[in-house]
Amino acid sequence: MATKRKQELTVEERLERAKLPGKRAPEWHAFYRGKVETALKCAVTSVDDFGIWYTPGVAAPCKEIQADPSKAFDYTNKANTVAVVSDGSRVLGLGNIGPLAGLPVMEGKALLFKYLGGVGAFPIMLGTQDTEEIIQAVKWIAPGFGGINLEDFANPKCFEILDRLRAELDIPVWHDDQQGTASITLAGVINALKVVGKDMAKATYCVIGSGAANIAFVRVLTSAGVPAGNILLVDSQGILHPGREDLEADKANNPYKWKYALETNAERRRGGMADAIVGADVLIAASKPGPDTIKKEWLRTMNPRAVAFIMANPIPEIWPWDATDAGVEIVGTGRSDFPNQVNNSIGFPGIFRGTLDVFAKTITDEMAIAAAYAIAETAEAKGLRDDYIVPTMMETEVFINEAVAVGLKAIEQGIARRILTEAELRREAETKIRHAQEETRVLMKSGVIAPAPKAAK
Amino acid sequence: MATKRKQELTVEERLERAKLPGKRAPEWHAFYRGKVETALKCAVTSVDDFGIWYTPGVAAPCKEIQADPSKAFDYTNKANTVAVVSDGSRVLGLGNIGPLAGLPVMEGKALLFKYLGGVGAFPIMLGTQDTEEIIQAVKWIAPGFGGINLEDFANPKCFEILDRLRAELDIPVWHDDQQGTASITLAGVINALKVVGKDMAKATYCVIGSGAANIAFVRVLTSAGVPAGNILLVDSQGILHPGREDLEADKANNPYKWKYALETNAERRRGGMADAIVGADVLIAASKPGPDTIKKEWLRTMNPRAVAFIMANPIPEIWPWDATDAGVEIVGTGRSDFPNQVNNSIGFPGIFRGTLDVFAKTITDEMAIAAAYAIAETAEAKGLRDDYIVPTMMETEVFINEAVAVGLKAIEQGIARRILTEAELRREAETKIRHAQEETRVLMKSGVIAPAPKAAK
Repeated sequence: MATKRKQELTVEERLERAKLPGKRAPEWHAFYRGKVETALKCAVTSVDDFGIWYTPGVAAPCKEIQADPSKAFDYTNKANTVAVVSDGSRVLGLGNIGPLAGLPVMEGKALLFKYLGGVGAFPIMLGTQDTEEIIQAVKWIAPGFGGINLEDFANPKCFEILDRLRAELDIPVWHDDQQGTASITLAGVINALKVVGKDMAKATYCVIGSGAANIAFVRVLTSAGVPAGNILLVDSQGILHPGREDLEADKANNPYKWKYALETNAERRRGGMADAIVGADVLIAASKPGPDTIKKEWLRTMNPRAVAFIMANPIPEIWPWDATDAGVEIVGTGRSDFPNQVNNSIGFPGIFRGTLDVFAKTITDEMAIAAAYAIAETAEAKGLRDDYIVPTMMETEVFINEAVAVGLKAIEQGIARRILTEAELRREAETKIRHAQEETRVLMKSGVIAPAPKAAK
Repeated sequence: MATKRKQELTVEERLERAKLPGKRAPEWHAFYRGKVETALKCAVTSVDDFGIWYTPGVAAPCKEIQADPSKAFDYTNKANTVAVVSDGSRVLGLGNIGPLAGLPVMEGKALLFKYLGGVGAFPIMLGTQDTEEIIQAVKWIAPGFGGINLEDFANPKCFEILDRLRAELDIPVWHDDQQGTASITLAGVINALKVVGKDMAKATYCVIGSGAANIAFVRVLTSAGVPAGNILLVDSQGILHPGREDLEADKANNPYKWKYALETNAERRRGGMADAIVGADVLIAASKPGPDTIKKEWLRTMNPRAVAFIMANPIPEIWPWDATDAGVEIVGTGRSDFPNQVNNSIGFPGIFRGTLDVFAKTITDEMAIAAAYAIAETAEAKGLRDDYIVPTMMETEVFINEAVAVGLKAIEQGIARRILTEAELRREAETKIRHAQEETRVLMKSGVIAPAPKAAK
C-alpha cells in the first residue's frame, strides 16, 4: 500500500497533501468551538431527580465519603477522570506558545483519552511556568481527579515536576512525553526489528535529541533488556560520552543526561549527528522539526535493513519518502497522515484505562513496557509489513489489550487497590471504550454532533 | 395542589417522604459512578480526523491563538466552560467536609449547569482551605476557562476570595452562595409580594443569618430599591444595630456585617431572633439546619399575609407545613421536594448562559437583578399561586429568559465583548440549552445512559 502510494504521488503532491490537516483545522475548530465538553453520565427524567443528584439527596453520599474517602471511587467520576495539565511551554513542535494557545492541543488530547480509552479527561491550562508553582497547582487541584497526565512541559523542568508529583500524590501521575512516547516507541522498535530480522538486545541504536522523550526512551529501552552500551545518545553538542565536560558541569540541573553520558556509548564514540548515525540498526530522532534536520546521505551510512523513527512534530526531521530513498527499510513518524505512526496516542488511552480500572497508585516503567509488548503483539497478530508495525488508533483492540496487560502488571507489582482477573479487566476496558465510542456514534447519528464541514473544492 | 397534598398526608408521612432522596442517593450514585463526564463535541469518522483534531493539524489554530488570544473563544470550548471550584469548607448544610467529600455536590452542580443552562461546567476540588492559596490556585487554572463558579466556601473568606478574583481575572467570577442565592431569593420576594398584594419598597424584612448568602441578598435587595432601614438582619448574637460592639471590633475581618449594622434597622430594634420576626412582612432565613431553628409561635407574630423563605440545607429552619400552620401565607424552601423551591439552581444556569454568550468580563449585581426580574416574570406569565411563585427547573424558558435579560444588561453596561441583539441572544440560549437536553435525551434513549435503578418496594 505504502509502495503503491509512493509510486502514484510526486514529491510535490506528497508535500501538498501533508499540508491538508493544517489547512482544514481552523475551519473545523471554529465550526465546533471546542472538541470536548461536559456531558451527563446519569439519567434525568424529572425535577425529582435533581433532589437526588443535588440537594437534599446528595448529602448522603457526601457524608459517606467523609467517613470513608475510598467511597469517592464509587460515588463520583473521580476514578475515571484524568487532568490533562500543561503550561504550554513546549507544545508539539511549536515551542513555548503559552497555556491559552496550547488549549487546542490539550482538548485534542482529552478527545483521544475519551474516544480511544473511555477515560474522561479534562484540559487544565496553567497560568504559570515556574516549576514549584506548577507542582503546587497540580497538588491543589488533585482531589477530584483519578490521575494526572502532564503534557508539553519544557525540558528539563518536566523531570522534576513528574518525579515530585509522583512522590507526593497518591494518584498516578504520567508525563506522556516521557513514559508515553517511550512505550509506543519501544513497541515500534520491537516489531520493526522482527520485520528486519534483528535481535533487539544485539542491535545498535542511535538516539538523536536528548529531551524528555528520548531520555525516558533510553531508560525504558534498557529496562526492556537492551544494554546501554549499544545506544548512542546525541544532543545539540554531539554524541554523549563521559568526556563531555559541559554535561558534568550541568549535572545538578540535568542529572539524567549526565547519567546516560556515563552509561551509554560503550565504544566511546565522539562527534556530531552524522557520526552518530554511522552503523546504526535503529535511528530514533526526536529533535528539531524538519524536513532538513537529518540529511539523506547520513541515513545511507546506517547498517543494512535499517529502521528509522523520525518523530519531530509537526514536520519530521526528514520526509519519510526521503528516508526510504536513502535505503531505510522501515520508517515511522509521529504524524497520523503517514504510514507507521509511532504516536503516543496508541499508548496513553489504553495505559490509563488499565491503570484506572485497578485504581493503581502510580504507573511504573514495567507497566509501560507491558503496554509496549501488548501494542506490538496486537499488530503482529494481524501480520507485520514494512508499512504496518503498530496498530492505528481505529484498531480498538489495541487499547483493550494494553489495559489488560497494564492492569495485570499493576496487580503483580502490588500497587493496585482493586484486584480483577484478566477476564474482568478485559470486560471493564471493553465496556468503557465501547461506551465512549457508542456515545459519540449516537450523538453524531442523531445530529447532536453535526457533521464536519465539507472540504472546499 | 399544595393544599390538597397537605390534606392527604400526615406529618409523619411528610417526614418520611422528605427522607426519600437521601435514601435513594447512595444507590443511584454508585450505579452511575459519577454524574458528569467529558464527551466529544466534534465528529470523529476516521483516523484521518485525528490528524485535524490533534497533531499535525491542530498546530494551525494554536498558532492563530498565540497571535490573537481572542481566537481561543472561536477555536476551543473556553467560551462555554465554567470551573465549579470548591474547597469543601461549607458544603450545603454539612459544614466543612473537605474537597473529596464535597465532590458529589460539585458534580451535581456541573450537571445542573449543563442540563439547565447548556454550560460545560467541570468540578475542581481544591486541596487547600487557605484564602491566599485558593485565590492563587484559581488564578493558575483560569486560562482554560470562560468563567469561575465559586461554591461552598466558608464565610467570611468567601467575600475576599470573590472580590480579589473578580478584580484580578478577566473572566466572570461568581460565588453562587452570594449573588446566585440573592438573585433567586429576590425573584421569590418579588412574586410573593405580588400574591399577597404588598409593595416591595414599603414591606418590612427580617433576614435571619448573616452569612454570605444573606449579606449578598441585603446588598442586592437594596440595589433593587428596598430602603436598608426596612430590613432587620440577625446573626447568632441577635439583631444587627450600630451599638453592636462585637461587630465594630471585628470590622476589619468582616467589614460587610458592620456596614449593614450601620445601614439597616432604621428603628434601631434590639433583641434576638424572636424579637426580629415580630411585625415582619417577609422572613428570609438562611441560618442553621432545622427543623427546630425557628419556632411556630415566632412566626405567629409576623404581619398578616406573611411570606417566609426558610432556606437552610438540607433541612429548613422549620418544616414548611409548620410555617403554614403558624399562618404564613407563602412559604418557600431550598428543597426540590417541597413547593416553592427558592433555589439558586433556577438562577446560575441562565445567568451564566447570558454572561458567556456575550463574553462578558464579569457579572454585575445589575445583571443578577435583571435575572431576578426575568425569573419572576416567567412565573407570573403562567399565573402565580401560593404554591407557585418561581418556576421549577424543568421550565426551560426561565433560563432562556434570564440569559436574554443578563446578556442585554451586560451589553448596556459596556462589559460585553460580543454584541448580540435580543433575538440573537434568545437563539443562542435556546440552541445551547436544547443541545444539552437533546444530548441527554438521545443518550438515555439509546441506552448509553442506562435507566436509573428502580425504587425498592
